[in-house]
Amino acid sequence: MVIKAGIVGGTGYTGVELLRLLVQHPDVELRAITSRKEAGTAVAAMFPGLRGHVELAFTEPNAQALRGCDVVFFATPNGVAMGEARAVLDAGARIVDLSADFRIRELAEWERWYKMKHAAPELLREAVYGLCEVNREQIRGARLVANPGCYPTAVQLGFLPLVESGAVDVEHLIADAKSGVSGAGRKAELALSFSEASDNFAAYNVPGHRHWPEIRQGLAQAAKREVGLVFIPHLTPMIRGIHATLYARVTREVDFQALYEKRYEREPFVDVMPPGSHPDTRSVRAANVCRIALHRPPESASKAQTLVVLAVIDNLVKGAAGQAVQNMNLMFGLPETRALDQPPVVP
Amino acid sequence: MVIKAGIVGGTGYTGVELLRLLVQHPDVELRAITSRKEAGTAVAAMFPGLRGHVELAFTEPNAQALRGCDVVFFATPNGVAMGEARAVLDAGARIVDLSADFRIRELAEWERWYKMKHAAPELLREAVYGLCEVNREQIRGARLVANPGCYPTAVQLGFLPLVESGAVDVEHLIADAKSGVSGAGRKAELALSFSEASDNFAAYNVPGHRHWPEIRQGLAQAAKREVGLVFIPHLTPMIRGIHATLYARVTREVDFQALYEKRYEREPFVDVMPPGSHPDTRSVRAANVCRIALHRPPESASKAQTLVVLAVIDNLVKGAAGQAVQNMNLMFGLPETRALDQPPVVP
Amino acid sequence: MVIKAGIVGGTGYTGVELLRLLVQHPDVELRAITSRKEAGTAVAAMFPGLRGHVELAFTEPNAQALRGCDVVFFATPNGVAMGEARAVLDAGARIVDLSADFRIRELAEWERWYKMKHAAPELLREAVYGLCEVNREQIRGARLVANPGCYPTAVQLGFLPLVESGAVDVEHLIADAKSGVSGAGRKAELALSFSEASDNFAAYNVPGHRHWPEIRQGLAQAAKREVGLVFIPHLTPMIRGIHATLYARVTREVDFQALYEKRYEREPFVDVMPPGSHPDTRSVRAANVCRIALHRPPESASKAQTLVVLAVIDNLVKGAAGQAVQNMNLMFGLPETRALDQPPVVP
Amino acid sequence: MVIKAGIVGGTGYTGVELLRLLVQHPDVELRAITSRKEAGTAVAAMFPGLRGHVELAFTEPNAQALRGCDVVFFATPNGVAMGEARAVLDAGARIVDLSADFRIRELAEWERWYKMKHAAPELLREAVYGLCEVNREQIRGARLVANPGCYPTAVQLGFLPLVESGAVDVEHLIADAKSGVSGAGRKAELALSFSEASDNFAAYNVPGHRHWPEIRQGLAQAAKREVGLVFIPHLTPMIRGIHATLYARVTREVDFQALYEKRYEREPFVDVMPPGSHPDTRSVRAANVCRIALHRPPESASKAQTLVVLAVIDNLVKGAAGQAVQNMNLMFGLPETRALDQPPVVP
Repeated sequence: MVIKAGIVGGTGYTGVELLRLLVQHPDVELRAITSRKEAGTAVAAMFPGLRGHVELAFTEPNAQALRGCDVVFFATPNGVAMGEARAVLDAGARIVDLSADFRIRELAEWERWYKMKHAAPELLREAVYGLCEVNREQIRGARLVANPGCYPTAVQLGFLPLVESGAVDVEHLIADAKSGVSGAGRKAELALSFSEASDNFAAYNVPGHRHWPEIRQGLAQAAKREVGLVFIPHLTPMIRGIHATLYARVTREVDFQALYEKRYEREPFVDVMPPGSHPDTRSVRAANVCRIALHRPPESASKAQTLVVLAVIDNLVKGAAGQAVQNMNLMFGLPETRALDQPPVVP
Repeated sequence: MVIKAGIVGGTGYTGVELLRLLVQHPDVELRAITSRKEAGTAVAAMFPGLRGHVELAFTEPNAQALRGCDVVFFATPNGVAMGEARAVLDAGARIVDLSADFRIRELAEWERWYKMKHAAPELLREAVYGLCEVNREQIRGARLVANPGCYPTAVQLGFLPLVESGAVDVEHLIADAKSGVSGAGRKAELALSFSEASDNFAAYNVPGHRHWPEIRQGLAQAAKREVGLVFIPHLTPMIRGIHATLYARVTREVDFQALYEKRYEREPFVDVMPPGSHPDTRSVRAANVCRIALHRPPESASKAQTLVVLAVIDNLVKGAAGQAVQNMNLMFGLPETRALDQPPVVP
Repeated sequence: MVIKAGIVGGTGYTGVELLRLLVQHPDVELRAITSRKEAGTAVAAMFPGLRGHVELAFTEPNAQALRGCDVVFFATPNGVAMGEARAVLDAGARIVDLSADFRIRELAEWERWYKMKHAAPELLREAVYGLCEVNREQIRGARLVANPGCYPTAVQLGFLPLVESGAVDVEHLIADAKSGVSGAGRKAELALSFSEASDNFAAYNVPGHRHWPEIRQGLAQAAKREVGLVFIPHLTPMIRGIHATLYARVTREVDFQALYEKRYEREPFVDVMPPGSHPDTRSVRAANVCRIALHRPPESASKAQTLVVLAVIDNLVKGAAGQAVQNMNLMFGLPETRALDQPPVVP
Repeated sequence: MVIKAGIVGGTGYTGVELLRLLVQHPDVELRAITSRKEAGTAVAAMFPGLRGHVELAFTEPNAQALRGCDVVFFATPNGVAMGEARAVLDAGARIVDLSADFRIRELAEWERWYKMKHAAPELLREAVYGLCEVNREQIRGARLVANPGCYPTAVQLGFLPLVESGAVDVEHLIADAKSGVSGAGRKAELALSFSEASDNFAAYNVPGHRHWPEIRQGLAQAAKREVGLVFIPHLTPMIRGIHATLYARVTREVDFQALYEKRYEREPFVDVMPPGSHPDTRSVRAANVCRIALHRPPESASKAQTLVVLAVIDNLVKGAAGQAVQNMNLMFGLPETRALDQPPVVP
């Protein structure tokens, strides 16, 4: 069986990364890539790296373009997928939405953070949150999968075993997260320019980042109670990669290393490293992997109550396009690792 | 009056940064720069940027070389200054030690972390910790100043008003710190090579970093009680700069912005930024400044108990050579800002 | 005497670099900085690095704003200075124009490359090309100085002794030049974004770059005949710096090292390095220096006819704002090096 | 058929890149990876990115370790392969040597540049230079292939059609080449450290680089006469990538674009881009491709005689490990593109 795939909004970094992964997927045939702005342009003219790999040109984003697709990926800015999803589903295709349109279950909460009215509240209810390590079974049967955000992927995978265990104080979680610049998208923006962003480091959006409610939703579900979370994102002068440094106060001592190893022992894309490890982001560069290490650093003379979790992903792969393909593999009954098992590119 | 200055160990980054600052200092005459390994080499042959600025050659590190100096800077690896300080003081010079030899007051604690026997315990008692914003008066009269470490400068300046105020839980402080690569020194080391360290991000020394006891000592003194501190350093792909993201749990609500502004209102080198700011490391690049901003990020539906402090410095300036010159200015009765008021280099 | 200075268009990189240099200049008082777009904004609000150094706010760019200035720097996009220069001169101020408006002597040539009609042809004739190492005397008496472009500064200083000597084939000069990203200006442009420009290297504008006619004009004047020049610019993943690798075919053997040393022996800002040197761009970072080295690399078994010149500058200093201050110093009878003698920032 | 492969010296960048490619190769079974220094260490402990991909540990480099291999890759420092090749061949394996030991045909020339006595002159005569686009047929039958150097690959592929055509002056070729830092190998070396090499640009080895005789040998063979070549390498602050800017003086006008397209029309890994293109190194990042573009830039008023060729490769793939696998594919009768057709990783 060949899965006929379409991509809506293929000119951003998640779109072109999807292309990179899908052209290597033996079960996928790329049918259409849409872009309102670039309709008519050959994909390989815009991304010379794809010369010889993608023959398609961008097409106008309309129903016609996507006709016959078995799966449609939305790699669009927030607010687009919710307006077009209904028609795509009605045409018989399934959807993996890489934008944020279907990630937050509560309508009011979504509208507060994304500052627009949601165009498809009924689909919001139907959508399955595509964190495979949590919702694998629902994803298999889903028509519409909301692919998680990049920070939420790293932070949730890092915290999950802890909050599920009930062994830490879930009211005071801290996620100090650092992202490469590609996480901000393929944009002409002064703050993202090389001259501004290189040889520099800063926090941003400290008063509130849209991934905060998404992470809290996931952790609350895992904890089966409301959680408190301080989430501080930082911009790092690298292209790809997220490093989440997570802090939780231990309330009950357990063997945390064993807890994590057990939680993820069957997960093909979560790697719990040996005690004492310091995962670096390049160890997952261009790969669909989350690596995790646990630490109990010195704290005071009398105690060391804080557990520190280090979690790294490639924001464009496990944090976006790779996870989208992982979801597609699940939705279509393929081996979950199909076309996702390349080692990282190091150095 | 002209201050005759000598530098012991001038081939590392703190040494060459000292040179950059001292050649611009109108009251300083550079007398000698020693280096066992490079004795005989012209300084400008090793650092072409100093062609036309420094005529000296490196000399053997012995008492003869430093004769006649009013002040001697040690920019040496840990363990050197403690062996030579006595002779330098006896010859009538004062000392600013940029290494860690005299930073920790408790002998046993120092020896535990630095894994060697201290060669001059009596000087350890005499040494003044050179964080000007705390010990200004003692520094003026000091013969021997222990220049603070880079992380300790940023973290202490960031936390000081809080721990002095007693308005936060000092048993559970967290410092998530990120440093540029020059913080590791001028070294041929694989992990610091461009191919390994660029386009990458990782934590290091999580099980224990030598700056942890130094920071705790300073904060405990400010808090007038023992403190608990989790300190996690990270390596960032930039040359210069430290960004400390500090977390403290508020136990008593006060106007924290006012608290910081008041604490630092007379400090020439601490800049409390307006509420909502995100200081970036390049805003202090090559400048002797610490910039600080305060935040109360969202935490849970019901409360926001955590105060977040963002503090940035240039690790080689306010975190090393600049602070050393600031200390020298104080020790010799000069205006504290002399030769330290250049704006940062941006971009 | 205090020189009252104004800057038109102070929001770009050359403008903010001018600010950095002028606030350290003991003879300059900054009177006004204009920006149509940012009028009313405090300069230090836009550039936090200037907090405590610049109290001014941006003002509307009109004659009123610049009244009373002794010198006005234009740090504007091409096409602005030529429209406003006349009024500024009539008000009694002198001008250093950092844009390209007055760099090309031939009107038709200028209009061909800059694709607009020149607004002040008579000033084009009056303007002095501000390469101090060539036109020092004319600059002293000039009202209007055209500050050279960044590439033209490096390439001309690198080639000058050669073409003046007549010892090379001036019909076949090659300049392979590499620039840091700040050379493109402070712009929101996709190609300049960190994610696109870092970890990458490419040539650009190979079919024709506007600095080509400017360089040829200068070299032709030095050679006293027309010259042939291939000029290939490249974008390099660094913030500041230009490295020009220059190729000339030797037609008459002379002692080229001596030739260069003699040509530049009284030049405070040109450093001819010892034979065998490889100048790196960071050795001039943030400094007003051009460093040059000469080589005769192997070529074939029988001969080595090609002379290779390596020349580096900081594009924002000797290639823009520093040279502008150097020109101002000359115009106002100050020592040429005033406020320009800081060592580079290394590392 | 499964090819049993061994790697001698698997701890450098070419070694680990070989691992990355070979674990994805469906016809290869990795049998042994040797390293004297790391014998006993698990490969994945040294390169965490290979966790889950490589189960092997490094073994002592002896004949035993490589017994049963069909092919042995030498990813060793120069001087190792020549000493061990004979035994490997006698044991029945074929060799792809990624070091320089067998690249230069003339013994005296090799010994002059590599400053040692060659240990296997008779194999030097047997070895086939592994530039597939030139020696495809000989490679198929070869026992011992000398994999080309990184610069030589880019420069030869860029110049080949020109020198074969006889339409340019081959006595005065210029190759201005820029390499990412990984080209220098996985080394603890000060000049390669992040603090020294980032935000910086410089030429190196201008008086003579070992790739110069290798390139000249290849071009001379193509030109069927001796050639003159100036080759200037530069270090660029990026991890991977080579950009060669090539200059040749046209002596006979032909349609150069057509010439290149025809020369490479059947080459799977050479991409002649459309006229006017500026290939960037990231368009080949992690991919086994050389992209080439041609230009005729302005030169003087009367003529434009110089042809400029821009050629980019990934130094670790087409410039090392990828080309080695391409050679192996040829040697074992596999499709040449097997396991080498992944698109580049962009951004």
